[in-house]
Amino acid sequence: MHAPLLARSRRTRRTPFTDRVTAAGVKAYTVYNHMLLPAVFRSVEEDYHHLKSAVQLWDVACERQIELRGPDAERLLQMTSPRDLSRMATDQCYYVPIVDVNGGMINDPIVLKLASDRFWVSIADSDLMYYYKGLAGGFGMDVQVSEPDISPLAIQGPKADILVERLFGKDIRETKFFRHKTITFQGQDMVIARSGWSRQIGFEIYMDGTRHGPALWDHIMEAGEDLDIRAGCPNGIERIEAGLLSYGNDVTLENTPFEADMGKYVQLDRVPTCRARAALLEKQVPDRQLRAVEMSGDPLPACTEPWPLLAGGTHAGNINSAAYSPDFKTNIGIAMIEAAYWDAGTTLVVHTPVGPRDVLVRAKYWI
Amino acid sequence: MHAPLLARSRRTRRTPFTDRVTAAGVKAYTVYNHMLLPAVFRSVEEDYHHLKSAVQLWDVACERQIELRGPDAERLLQMTSPRDLSRMATDQCYYVPIVDVNGGMINDPIVLKLASDRFWVSIADSDLMYYYKGLAGGFGMDVQVSEPDISPLAIQGPKADILVERLFGKDIRETKFFRHKTITFQGQDMVIARSGWSRQIGFEIYMDGTRHGPALWDHIMEAGEDLDIRAGCPNGIERIEAGLLSYGNDVTLENTPFEADMGKYVQLDRVPTCRARAALLEKQVPDRQLRAVEMSGDPLPACTEPWPLLAGGTHAGNINSAAYSPDFKTNIGIAMIEAAYWDAGTTLVVHTPVGPRDVLVRAKYWI
Repeated sequence: MHAPLLARSRRTRRTPFTDRVTAAGVKAYTVYNHMLLPAVFRSVEEDYHHLKSAVQLWDVACERQIELRGPDAERLLQMTSPRDLSRMATDQCYYVPIVDVNGGMINDPIVLKLASDRFWVSIADSDLMYYYKGLAGGFGMDVQVSEPDISPLAIQGPKADILVERLFGKDIRETKFFRHKTITFQGQDMVIARSGWSRQIGFEIYMDGTRHGPALWDHIMEAGEDLDIRAGCPNGIERIEAGLLSYGNDVTLENTPFEADMGKYVQLDRVPTCRARAALLEKQVPDRQLRAVEMSGDPLPACTEPWPLLAGGTHAGNINSAAYSPDFKTNIGIAMIEAAYWDAGTTLVVHTPVGPRDVLVRAKYWI
Repeated sequence: MHAPLLARSRRTRRTPFTDRVTAAGVKAYTVYNHMLLPAVFRSVEEDYHHLKSAVQLWDVACERQIELRGPDAERLLQMTSPRDLSRMATDQCYYVPIVDVNGGMINDPIVLKLASDRFWVSIADSDLMYYYKGLAGGFGMDVQVSEPDISPLAIQGPKADILVERLFGKDIRETKFFRHKTITFQGQDMVIARSGWSRQIGFEIYMDGTRHGPALWDHIMEAGEDLDIRAGCPNGIERIEAGLLSYGNDVTLENTPFEADMGKYVQLDRVPTCRARAALLEKQVPDRQLRAVEMSGDPLPACTEPWPLLAGGTHAGNINSAAYSPDFKTNIGIAMIEAAYWDAGTTLVVHTPVGPRDVLVRAKYWI
């Protein structure tokens, strides 16, 4: 298989942890928000087994924070999302679809509410900051929009709880899912949340200040040594098993939140100020939607472009993410499927770079 | 030197030419506007010598077009740029700084005017489309903002003129610098401009429609065979010799157009509607500015993070791009230098990953 190198420059930004990631033997990167995101350490399969059995430390600094601060911060955020943010507590994290005026997805971040007038939008791979700068300017809003020097570091895996208690105490371990608290490291306060892009137990530390990076990394690795902690990264197999979406892979500007199967995060009756409300009201019954799919045969290569799905000779959708699952012993994928074919149990054919494969539409993801 | 692989997925988009680029033996990519940009074929040095002596075909599909179309298209564009666009002809290309309300650079595209109400903004590496979507929405403007299916393909090198005449005729060869005309390929009209990210002779074809990609590539390669045409890409050595800036490397949101030495593209007395006008009026005398620099000693590694410049013990700026020039037999770079040290002939010291080097500030670039 063709495996090109990644050419490096300042533009594909290093993180505060890059030296440690390099020392840990990272084999491949991707680029995410103009920043390095580790993609493979030992092998995708070996990393996968370890993630599901031990604990890993992930450099996810590329999950940049867009800070909205000021009297109009919540108003600006709500303009861009059909999820009702009015009941959010100041220790909460929300997964929110962010849409343009037509209802097209432009990001799917985790939003952290830090104060009534202060939010962090922890972004997927697109320069959402520019949309907020444009809207804030155009509507003359009283809000500051910036990318602060915050670099998330994730602790993920079944032994994450043990490690976090050891590092930061029982109170932090008891943080509820999608809630955040504060820890102090080297005199610097940092937000910590029970969250992360895996279906394992996990926390994300929103490291404040580049200079603390190596010390924080080393501190966590030393504390986890007997738990077999390793440098890791979001795993392409585990995240498909878990049905965790990837903006740019499974969902793009071409898709509404309904197509992305994010309907449960849409409350159009409660968001009169969402700019996409009128468009989304007309698109509540989608023509296509994401589904979990299984594919027959030997392990497939990575999916680097949409693979067309056919029902007989008819276009039935596309598979946009795929991997071979060692635990479920089948090829697994996430597909955008037309309504006529999205029922669980439907069989289709996908055209992959290594030939056609039988496809089974599933009712749900694997874990 | 540590050379990680690039992990591939749909999110780092293929181009219409990726199969041809792969067949041509691309060794490294970077990611630019969420899309693959070839970075090395034989070696950076070998590619460089060939670019300066023959002709190359570049997959620069990642130079995405943001189309602004409608009665308010020019008004929207002018809001974001301090360069006067009012005298632009409909066959012209302009290099324009694009800034946020504070005067910080958010992109440095080539703008093509196609009609009085239609522009293509050929973007550097940031999602500028979102800024236009936000502003257009906030100001209630009558303009459509989209990313059409346009994939630039560049013909660059001293033999580009001969090849373009052979392919498209004498009239196209006679296109003036930064002007555009129209060619037809397989029945499809496509814009062609005399432009490109090198200081060689060059044209860029704005290929309209993904399906024409392989045929257009093959057509050009066959016509240039006796000219020793090769697949190539923007070259990190040649572009520094030429002083061609790279957004994200040499210039970021932290910099004004004045700091980027783009003052000649700023006409604050003629752009009353530019939203950054007030901020830029106060920043016309910058505290720091880009300069060409030479560095002593053996060839340096790639610059993947700012290298600090010191004058005695005092911070004097950063080098953000560097390469060894085989033709000029020295290390060359682009640096952001504080005003006290930016005069030509000033000597400084830079701290690189391989140790300190002597630095000479130059009056101008090399070619």
